[in-house]
Amino acid sequence: MTEGITTVTVPVLLLGCGGVGRELLHHIVASRHLHSKRGVVLRVVGVRDSRSLLQVEDVATMGFDDAFLTEICRIKSSSSSLSALLDFGHCQLFKDSEATTKILDIAGLLGRTTGLSVVDCTASTETVGILKETVDLGCCIVLANKKPLTCGIDDYDKLISNIRRIRFESTVGAGLPVIVSVTRVLASGDPIYRIIGSLSGTLGYVMSEVEDGKSFSKVVLAAKSLGYTEPDPRDDLSGMDVARKALILARLLGWRINMDDIQVDSLYSNEHGPNSMSTEDFLRIGLPSLDRDVQERVSAASSRGKVLRYVCVIEGSRCQVGLQELPKDSPLGRLRGSDNVVEIYSRCYKDSPLVIQGAGAGNDTTAAGVLADIIDLQDLFH
Amino acid sequence: MTEGITTVTVPVLLLGCGGVGRELLHHIVASRHLHSKRGVVLRVVGVRDSRSLLQVEDVATMGFDDAFLTEICRIKSSSSSLSALLDFGHCQLFKDSEATTKILDIAGLLGRTTGLSVVDCTASTETVGILKETVDLGCCIVLANKKPLTCGIDDYDKLISNIRRIRFESTVGAGLPVIVSVTRVLASGDPIYRIIGSLSGTLGYVMSEVEDGKSFSKVVLAAKSLGYTEPDPRDDLSGMDVARKALILARLLGWRINMDDIQVDSLYSNEHGPNSMSTEDFLRIGLPSLDRDVQERVSAASSRGKVLRYVCVIEGSRCQVGLQELPKDSPLGRLRGSDNVVEIYSRCYKDSPLVIQGAGAGNDTTAAGVLADIIDLQDLFH
Repeated sequence: MTEGITTVTVPVLLLGCGGVGRELLHHIVASRHLHSKRGVVLRVVGVRDSRSLLQVEDVATMGFDDAFLTEICRIKSSSSSLSALLDFGHCQLFKDSEATTKILDIAGLLGRTTGLSVVDCTASTETVGILKETVDLGCCIVLANKKPLTCGIDDYDKLISNIRRIRFESTVGAGLPVIVSVTRVLASGDPIYRIIGSLSGTLGYVMSEVEDGKSFSKVVLAAKSLGYTEPDPRDDLSGMDVARKALILARLLGWRINMDDIQVDSLYSNEHGPNSMSTEDFLRIGLPSLDRDVQERVSAASSRGKVLRYVCVIEGSRCQVGLQELPKDSPLGRLRGSDNVVEIYSRCYKDSPLVIQGAGAGNDTTAAGVLADIIDLQDLFH
Repeated sequence: MTEGITTVTVPVLLLGCGGVGRELLHHIVASRHLHSKRGVVLRVVGVRDSRSLLQVEDVATMGFDDAFLTEICRIKSSSSSLSALLDFGHCQLFKDSEATTKILDIAGLLGRTTGLSVVDCTASTETVGILKETVDLGCCIVLANKKPLTCGIDDYDKLISNIRRIRFESTVGAGLPVIVSVTRVLASGDPIYRIIGSLSGTLGYVMSEVEDGKSFSKVVLAAKSLGYTEPDPRDDLSGMDVARKALILARLLGWRINMDDIQVDSLYSNEHGPNSMSTEDFLRIGLPSLDRDVQERVSAASSRGKVLRYVCVIEGSRCQVGLQELPKDSPLGRLRGSDNVVEIYSRCYKDSPLVIQGAGAGNDTTAAGVLADIIDLQDLFH
């Protein structure tokens, strides 16, 4: 079946080798055999963490081998410095500002010739500058990081200025095929008039547990101990992470909006915010004080035969993130646990929506989406 | 936002301009403005129906304009011959065998240079020959027609020999992103160990109505009068259409199997088959005689807290199509009406599957999937 398949080598430069980035390197090692059967060779030419850039000696011809990639994963798991890898030889280390210059050198050398996929697995707002420069140098961009796409609209426009060379599936619903589905519906000329989704596994889990009669504070604490929440659960409860995903979807539909244009209902009030109390105080005092209000809203919804879900709604001129009462027998209403669900309504999917559901978080799944994006881009280089 | 976007012109040759093909031409006209904004121009150079090929005068430079494409749709709606369009000028008509030669001429001229998308919207087994030849000539293939992919494995291998140049999303679940989702999961190195799906809107509708206590025969007759079934409902009840979709999915997973390897449970027995009785007799006598058996199976499932669904299952070494008892609270068990549902199980989607749900039939939705495939292929020509 491989008869006639030409092989393409895809150079990859990875920004961020923490959770998702590290998992991506694992996936690249594990799937190398599979991809070579389909004529694709992934060549990792460099990895950048918050302190330095580690690159192969000759970026034009070399890539880290599997043993080296595995060693990077091991080093990063133990929170050690990439410099520990210099002993392996055939690589170079650059620190801070020098690292940025070197990345642009690599982008300049490879971007327009063989193509270079610059893969952002950080959670930083600081990568947007270098990403924009690599776009100008002809590179492809793959994002797990939502922040570059949720900056100002000018930055966004720049990043997607060559729409064929950017992929960002893992920014919404991790590896779930949400972006590709929206893109395909739009490409078919089918106008999307509504997207509604539960895009936070954490908040999905919390709301379905609360519906079962448990107290909000206890469920949040349980979610925290299960590792479902951020260290400060307010990072989830604020809704800002969902708002970023909503903005990415809205902009994909062509909406010219910014974060400020999204109505975000936080699950806690300002008096319980990070500026007013510590995480510890929030968990001890702030969180339990929210129980009654949440319980009343759940009961009120239930008395109307509905359930409460924390969703994003993109419809008409409205992009909104917060608690909504939804029919029990809708895909969102039936949602249990930490799955994500997205309902897409268009001319073709009017009476019943196009629904995508599944695990929408986790390093493994997110990295899987990133790798599928990298592979998808290689069509450009045949 | 279009700054820096280069325009690519995609020549399209359409085989079959009945239901789906006609709808595709409508979509192309309706979405032309949208695509040109993204740098894609679709140029329809010819349309082939069962009798003849109508092509533009100069396939290297011309395409049918929107007025002409609309006229093709009008002519085909009224079951008239494409020859009626000769009056419009700037086009040529070729009959039968001459048409095949001409298609290969066009494929030879455009295949390797600008790319040519040969789009099969027929329901015929007879296109496989010409499709294989156009593959050799460097053309891209887009299929709504399941039959070329469900022929012998040699034909299949030939068609997918250049995997980057074939798309067939609409063969399974119409426009639903099933193929692209499976492809992405595989590309990420995430092994799929189970696919289970309800891939017949007709049988989905029938089984959920029967579950509500209606008799099987009455539901099938109602479905027929709503236009949900083929003229002879046995074409749906045989399960062969579902089996074709199952084979396409299994082969996508790398299984080297043929139609014969699929265990297909028909909803009627041989004594009620097309060789034994006419459609009319089947509807009058055969169909009601099935009521009791179906009712008993539904009741037996219900007594075990389960529901009966007509599904395909691809798992282990088994590819099976037929009625299965499923948990009421699974995505498939909750299925109502004519929606398709596919559950994909893999390492990333193990505890709860990746689920895709929505309308999985209809000319509009099917043609939308075909158009999204055509647009997806244009990345190859930048």
